[in-house]
Amino acid sequence: MKRVSIIGATGYAGSELVKLLTARADVEISSLVSTSNTGKLFSDVCKSMRYIADIPLSPLDIDKIASNSDAVFLSLPHGAGMEIAAAFVERGVKVFDLSADFRMQDQQLFERVYNTPHKRADLLSASAYGLAEFYEREIREAKIVGVPGCYPTAVLVPLLPLIKKRMIDTEHIIADCKSGISGAGKNPTETTHFCEVTVKPYSVFSHRHKFEIDDIIKRFTNIAADIVFTPHYVPVKRGLLAAIYTKSSFSKDELDKVYREFFAAKRYVRILSEPPSMQDVQNTPFIDIALFKKGGNVIIVSAIDNLLKGAASQAVQCFELCK
Amino acid sequence: MKRVSIIGATGYAGSELVKLLTARADVEISSLVSTSNTGKLFSDVCKSMRYIADIPLSPLDIDKIASNSDAVFLSLPHGAGMEIAAAFVERGVKVFDLSADFRMQDQQLFERVYNTPHKRADLLSASAYGLAEFYEREIREAKIVGVPGCYPTAVLVPLLPLIKKRMIDTEHIIADCKSGISGAGKNPTETTHFCEVTVKPYSVFSHRHKFEIDDIIKRFTNIAADIVFTPHYVPVKRGLLAAIYTKSSFSKDELDKVYREFFAAKRYVRILSEPPSMQDVQNTPFIDIALFKKGGNVIIVSAIDNLLKGAASQAVQCFELCK
Amino acid sequence: MKRVSIIGATGYAGSELVKLLTARADVEISSLVSTSNTGKLFSDVCKSMRYIADIPLSPLDIDKIASNSDAVFLSLPHGAGMEIAAAFVERGVKVFDLSADFRMQDQQLFERVYNTPHKRADLLSASAYGLAEFYEREIREAKIVGVPGCYPTAVLVPLLPLIKKRMIDTEHIIADCKSGISGAGKNPTETTHFCEVTVKPYSVFSHRHKFEIDDIIKRFTNIAADIVFTPHYVPVKRGLLAAIYTKSSFSKDELDKVYREFFAAKRYVRILSEPPSMQDVQNTPFIDIALFKKGGNVIIVSAIDNLLKGAASQAVQCFELCK
Amino acid sequence: MKRVSIIGATGYAGSELVKLLTARADVEISSLVSTSNTGKLFSDVCKSMRYIADIPLSPLDIDKIASNSDAVFLSLPHGAGMEIAAAFVERGVKVFDLSADFRMQDQQLFERVYNTPHKRADLLSASAYGLAEFYEREIREAKIVGVPGCYPTAVLVPLLPLIKKRMIDTEHIIADCKSGISGAGKNPTETTHFCEVTVKPYSVFSHRHKFEIDDIIKRFTNIAADIVFTPHYVPVKRGLLAAIYTKSSFSKDELDKVYREFFAAKRYVRILSEPPSMQDVQNTPFIDIALFKKGGNVIIVSAIDNLLKGAASQAVQCFELCK
Repeated sequence: MKRVSIIGATGYAGSELVKLLTARADVEISSLVSTSNTGKLFSDVCKSMRYIADIPLSPLDIDKIASNSDAVFLSLPHGAGMEIAAAFVERGVKVFDLSADFRMQDQQLFERVYNTPHKRADLLSASAYGLAEFYEREIREAKIVGVPGCYPTAVLVPLLPLIKKRMIDTEHIIADCKSGISGAGKNPTETTHFCEVTVKPYSVFSHRHKFEIDDIIKRFTNIAADIVFTPHYVPVKRGLLAAIYTKSSFSKDELDKVYREFFAAKRYVRILSEPPSMQDVQNTPFIDIALFKKGGNVIIVSAIDNLLKGAASQAVQCFELCK
Repeated sequence: MKRVSIIGATGYAGSELVKLLTARADVEISSLVSTSNTGKLFSDVCKSMRYIADIPLSPLDIDKIASNSDAVFLSLPHGAGMEIAAAFVERGVKVFDLSADFRMQDQQLFERVYNTPHKRADLLSASAYGLAEFYEREIREAKIVGVPGCYPTAVLVPLLPLIKKRMIDTEHIIADCKSGISGAGKNPTETTHFCEVTVKPYSVFSHRHKFEIDDIIKRFTNIAADIVFTPHYVPVKRGLLAAIYTKSSFSKDELDKVYREFFAAKRYVRILSEPPSMQDVQNTPFIDIALFKKGGNVIIVSAIDNLLKGAASQAVQCFELCK
Repeated sequence: MKRVSIIGATGYAGSELVKLLTARADVEISSLVSTSNTGKLFSDVCKSMRYIADIPLSPLDIDKIASNSDAVFLSLPHGAGMEIAAAFVERGVKVFDLSADFRMQDQQLFERVYNTPHKRADLLSASAYGLAEFYEREIREAKIVGVPGCYPTAVLVPLLPLIKKRMIDTEHIIADCKSGISGAGKNPTETTHFCEVTVKPYSVFSHRHKFEIDDIIKRFTNIAADIVFTPHYVPVKRGLLAAIYTKSSFSKDELDKVYREFFAAKRYVRILSEPPSMQDVQNTPFIDIALFKKGGNVIIVSAIDNLLKGAASQAVQCFELCK
Repeated sequence: MKRVSIIGATGYAGSELVKLLTARADVEISSLVSTSNTGKLFSDVCKSMRYIADIPLSPLDIDKIASNSDAVFLSLPHGAGMEIAAAFVERGVKVFDLSADFRMQDQQLFERVYNTPHKRADLLSASAYGLAEFYEREIREAKIVGVPGCYPTAVLVPLLPLIKKRMIDTEHIIADCKSGISGAGKNPTETTHFCEVTVKPYSVFSHRHKFEIDDIIKRFTNIAADIVFTPHYVPVKRGLLAAIYTKSSFSKDELDKVYREFFAAKRYVRILSEPPSMQDVQNTPFIDIALFKKGGNVIIVSAIDNLLKGAASQAVQCFELCK
């Protein structure tokens, strides 16, 4: 039985963590922390979980939580949890951080992309990138696991094996991504207003996940990529679909073989022969991937649930590696 | 050519007014007022109207607007436009007010329901209820037209003719209503967050439109009703459907005859023999109505576009009566 | 370990049954039958279940299935499974039938409502109505469990305890119900075309579930009711919300007390103090219920997932009672 | 006053044609033809148009229609209207054909892409491609106007001016397109079932519009392109958004200048500085376009209403050119 706590339990990703972890027989929830909802039950905020998770929401008491938790999940806004993560690490508790704070190991890159100083850059080298299919050993050994963003997950999982083997043209990688609205977070804004939601790209040429993707391609394959990445919102509550355009001089069979071999033992990766759909991965921990080729052109389509494989279930997958 | 101005041009109802009025050859827009967007163009805020309504948004200058407008439409939050309406009336400009401020003539009722003092109760007796099919003469003669709420429109249009003729049992009237999310306004809140929108009743036994409905039944028919009214939000951007349950000792033919006669010359009322649907009235100025009867039970279903027949096109309908 | 088979595994309710039953450690799937998809895997049809339920779909072989199943779930169109159910009963296998065929015990009523002869009326008296909270003993003892319809579940669960205690006015019961589109089944029709889906009532005064509701009220309470029932479709994939209007001379406290006592040990009934929402029960086996009272008027709002508590999870709930 | 007839008036594109043409003071509807709905009124099928277009649907009587129509719009399935178009041409009536039958002038290309013989290839040279911004003279002079497909419209309008001027790299053009479900037509299928609709690509590397796009690029610019084109369905009733990825050695200013000059007098093309959204063009005849550049990479985003600028309003735009 592992005891875990979740800091930031009432956001969209945090709530999914609670759902996943309360459903497990081998995990015990020690504390659910929500600064804004202290005193309420978790199920007062996440009402679908009434009777299932009537757990009090507590304030953040690091010593107490550290003393009764084997692992801590942080689901806080970017920049808000750096010191908190460090405090748990100092108390010997492993941290799974769903924010961007510990995804990059290059402090300067982080500070440029997120436009904020990194308060605990000393810990970056002790962190692992929580893409479970690719960083198993590092995740197991690290003090902090920086769980990947939703877009990077959908783009990197299908790309990394092919780039590692130098089988696609890294000068030409375009990722056109479509995300459900929960990706914009729980805070009500004009973007998330029901009457304003439509199909629309945003942050063209400037989204922060582009830099996370390039960074991990470099770290995992030692190739400097500079991908073109365009996120769109679509009128769906949850789910994320990526269409990745690249080129290759290898045959479809050769590319398929890489997938078959690399993903053979990866239980949450499903390789399909037809295009994935957002619906088929909603409420699941899977990433569905299909690769198409014609002439020199390659199209890879991947789909995940942005709140699960793109956040909460990915964090749990990392946690499982560490048991 | 009539010159009109719209105060509060960038809310959902205000924007629809601009769309309707710019499309008319017989109307000229004098001023579009938006305090929060002064200096922008209307089409900077309501982007679908680029090239169609690239009209500057101005601050509120009552004297100037009064001098160049034959009529003024107010589309402001409840309570915010009482003095403004009065100022235009004092300058001899007819006011069509889409808020609740001039819908009731009983000051005490208004103050109890809206829980705020009425600053210009002196004008209530000079106001008309802008339900165009029922108050034509009053609308023409009044200084201020209080344009009805969306729910009252959907409920009152089918009920008033039958109640007036004493043909239904006013002790048993239940209105179960379903509204699109634009009914909650443009301000982003938890209620309007895309990921939170679902099918859900709200303000059970306490919605303010219940009192507006009872009040107009009393004024139009002299019968004191006390209807049961339940509003729901449904995941639709615009549209409103009401199912009204009552009883009658008259035959369906007799009830139908009342509709045929009363609505014969009402161009925006469509009497159907099958259930109305929200989609068939979206983006139209119509109210669709069908009446069903079995034994003593009557079900009347009506549908409107909440932003048009439930707000903007109803205001324009009143305006047309006054030309 | 119980061995179960599902006949009609690829419809919407059947698929949900497969999802629920494959997730259980105490159940083993013997056969999944789909006449139209024989030869495929279940996960070829229900693609979200790839890797989870890659189970072959077989033709209907009653002897084989009877020999290797402790229970059989039928999820077939009304009228299509009467003889199949009988064949399993004759082979000593308990049947959980999700169609309407064994919900009523009165042959004439069934034949009038469904406009088709009942081929195995001899078995009606050996069947139980599978509303688990009310017919526990009968469900345990019956040879066939007729699992309730989605609308009857949402309406009967909150009504039966109050009617049984003679605490509401059964002369005045109106149920205004809103269902997700999966309630219309998997067959593509104009009704289920994405571009035609909107908010709209259907089968006004004529829906078959009205008679099921009246019948069960009579059987459970010995009171002849004649409720007014109006179903609507709303643009939601799954979920069902009912607003039930009635009258009572008892206080809200007295009514609440009935609920508290009756539902105290019912694990899938959640009594709320605020209006239920469709979203809070989606993908759950719960029915959420809230009761409101003002003067003599009562409004009860209930919500279920039409494919779970309104079909598949209700069937599993019945199955659990029989272990 | 021009007299027009519409053959195929009750499909999604045909209905939009009726809406547009009945709203015009300078057009008179002679006949609305619907083989499957003969005898009904148009508004019996398209119920939102009750009171607006209560026009009888007639069978196809070519001589009669030819004698009372100045122009005919065909909105029939691909391949179904070739002989009908020819019959009108032979009677001297100009044809605006919304199908693919007269979009290509190369018979072999048509037959390969649509996998059907062209029955009236003799008329291909007398046809014009109805992309109004680019083929004004041809549209005016042709006997048949082949109105473009929805995807080609969204892709070609922004690309043609830049390719014509040799300012982008035609070896690298990728169009990732997202369409509302009305693009799949009115016929109910698994694809259009509300519960199956999600975000999903289809016809990867094989959609017929890719060949239409390449063909028109060749005809308009004399450059042989071979674009990569991926269509997706998204859960929206109407609307289409394209993200087009290419490369250019020209500056953003230089590219913008081409747009400014080319589209200066094109009233239905709106050049924006921020990403277009599907909602801003819904129910409008506009195409919204924005161009972004970083390094050598260009992203052009365009949005149309697939039923209007992608079908009906484009046809009317062509018709207007011919008055």
